[in-house]
Amino acid sequence: MSQLKNDRFIRALLKQPVDRTPVWMMRQAGRYLPEYREIRSRAGDFLTLCQTPELACEVTLQPLRRYAFDAAILFSDILTIPDAMGQGLYFSEGEGPKFRKVIRNAADVEALPELNISKDLGYVTDAVSLIRSELNGSVPLIGFSGSPWTLATYMIEGGGSRDFRIAKQFMYDNPEAMHLLLEKLAAAVTDYLNAQIEAGAQVVQIFDTWGGILSTGAYEEFSLAYMEKIARNLHKEKDGLPIPLIIFTKNGGLWLERIAASGCHCVGLDWTINIGVARDRIGDKVALQGNMDPSILYASPQRIRTEVEGILKDYGTGTGHVFNLGHGITPGVNPDHVSTFVDCVHELSEQYHL
Amino acid sequence: MSQLKNDRFIRALLKQPVDRTPVWMMRQAGRYLPEYREIRSRAGDFLTLCQTPELACEVTLQPLRRYAFDAAILFSDILTIPDAMGQGLYFSEGEGPKFRKVIRNAADVEALPELNISKDLGYVTDAVSLIRSELNGSVPLIGFSGSPWTLATYMIEGGGSRDFRIAKQFMYDNPEAMHLLLEKLAAAVTDYLNAQIEAGAQVVQIFDTWGGILSTGAYEEFSLAYMEKIARNLHKEKDGLPIPLIIFTKNGGLWLERIAASGCHCVGLDWTINIGVARDRIGDKVALQGNMDPSILYASPQRIRTEVEGILKDYGTGTGHVFNLGHGITPGVNPDHVSTFVDCVHELSEQYHL
Repeated sequence: MSQLKNDRFIRALLKQPVDRTPVWMMRQAGRYLPEYREIRSRAGDFLTLCQTPELACEVTLQPLRRYAFDAAILFSDILTIPDAMGQGLYFSEGEGPKFRKVIRNAADVEALPELNISKDLGYVTDAVSLIRSELNGSVPLIGFSGSPWTLATYMIEGGGSRDFRIAKQFMYDNPEAMHLLLEKLAAAVTDYLNAQIEAGAQVVQIFDTWGGILSTGAYEEFSLAYMEKIARNLHKEKDGLPIPLIIFTKNGGLWLERIAASGCHCVGLDWTINIGVARDRIGDKVALQGNMDPSILYASPQRIRTEVEGILKDYGTGTGHVFNLGHGITPGVNPDHVSTFVDCVHELSEQYHL
Repeated sequence: MSQLKNDRFIRALLKQPVDRTPVWMMRQAGRYLPEYREIRSRAGDFLTLCQTPELACEVTLQPLRRYAFDAAILFSDILTIPDAMGQGLYFSEGEGPKFRKVIRNAADVEALPELNISKDLGYVTDAVSLIRSELNGSVPLIGFSGSPWTLATYMIEGGGSRDFRIAKQFMYDNPEAMHLLLEKLAAAVTDYLNAQIEAGAQVVQIFDTWGGILSTGAYEEFSLAYMEKIARNLHKEKDGLPIPLIIFTKNGGLWLERIAASGCHCVGLDWTINIGVARDRIGDKVALQGNMDPSILYASPQRIRTEVEGILKDYGTGTGHVFNLGHGITPGVNPDHVSTFVDCVHELSEQYHL
């Protein structure tokens, strides 16, 4: 594997000095890009894109041709694991992900098969290898997975939800079955991320999209505990280089200290918390990733610049900051605004790394 | 006006000793009750219920006939103010509130009329007077309003939203117009709540349903500042009795200290924060209201009891706690589970007030 030409992102995650604050965007390979929409419409549907390594690779690389991002992220979906377990993932237009089968009792949980990643999710590891090779050391590649709790909510609800009534009722009334489900998912996520690491992912991120809908006690018991378990069992290095882990719980701002102590190298922040406050709270234990409100990309370039300036100033001097949005970029954003965003981060951050 | 037979709720809000922890539920007059569904189907639609004082009164009193709640809350909608301003509120089945007119620029904001509450929203103050009289001192009556920011989001978006893209773009690109809109709404909310107080509301609550979608800086500038302004201008007492103010920002757990310093008597909590942690953070400055996850009402009576027990224990001894859900009760809840909830709060809280 080639040496990294740009290692800012890895260095910031490890809290080593950098020349500028590294930046990437969640969902940077996505619908806001016309070239993405074109390839997706040719592919027919979203899942075909994910399941065809050449297409996933092409889509992963698209934003890097336009913007000076400091990292690439595997193009895939957080729900590949339940799909591989036989739940039948599909996407209905305008309604988001759905499953043909749902988990509603202990027997459903017990019936879930153990995954063989290279057989059941080989299309993902093949994509990782291909992207890593195509990147040719330009920037590091991020692998990822949904968190066990987040995967469980979709598997139980059969899709997205407003109030997660079914998933929560399952958790409150049948905690043993919920824990068994989360155990199975944590084992699968661990194998999945380790397989991505072996295939070439240089950083991994766990997306805990729905941890923030829980009470503090339930978050610790049903979401964080399983991410901690994954953190303990991930491969710590590959080819002699450390593999940093990022944990991102949306709406997890109340629990930063606990997340920072989970065994991750970096805590992902949504936009609701001030990043300076977050840094004060967790000290210098781990790096922080975030946290511009994605909606600011709809505002004027001048307003985007002001916001980037404010977040850099709030974080302050020194390393340990990976600039990102506080959530994925949304489809309607003007691609030129993304240039403004990325270039402002690089230009305005230099003074914080002298 | 008759003396209050049960003043636990008011006493807890003022941090005076109580014999048991008072309890009520947001949306306690609502669709989970068959008698509510019956009267609503006879009325034809939701707005007719709100706009007919006799029906609003009847619906307000329904849950008090079933349950030992320590407060009544006016049956109304948070969007009466923009409706009275001519925005044309309506409800489309399964989609929530909508407006026929939307606010999209400074001229739209400037064109908004100043309200004359007794003329434009007399149906609300009439309902308050009637309910107060019918309650006959059994429990106190809560009046309420949406927060200026929350009202603004609906007025700009034209209804609910997933990402509030239009409202946020308006805020980021046109902060002067947004501030003018919020000024107008804060003035209307102040007049509206004062009119409710004069008509008989003994406590008022501001529902800041969407403050929690903002960054910390934007929350302080565009939501909290206007609630503070309202707090300063509310009538502080009526008939020699203090009128406590509750401020509830959903997903506002990061900002409790700031909310507690806003001039309110009580901070409403959603279920994501541990109430003991919240009490430690704000000290004894104000009371706390909350914060059971409404989804627990779908679980078994035994699980509901365990959760009530846990929240009471987390709050600990002494006054200043008003038990509530962390958000409104949802339509599918079994009414018997509400009895369990209310009775458990009274039964299990006695030991914390000896």
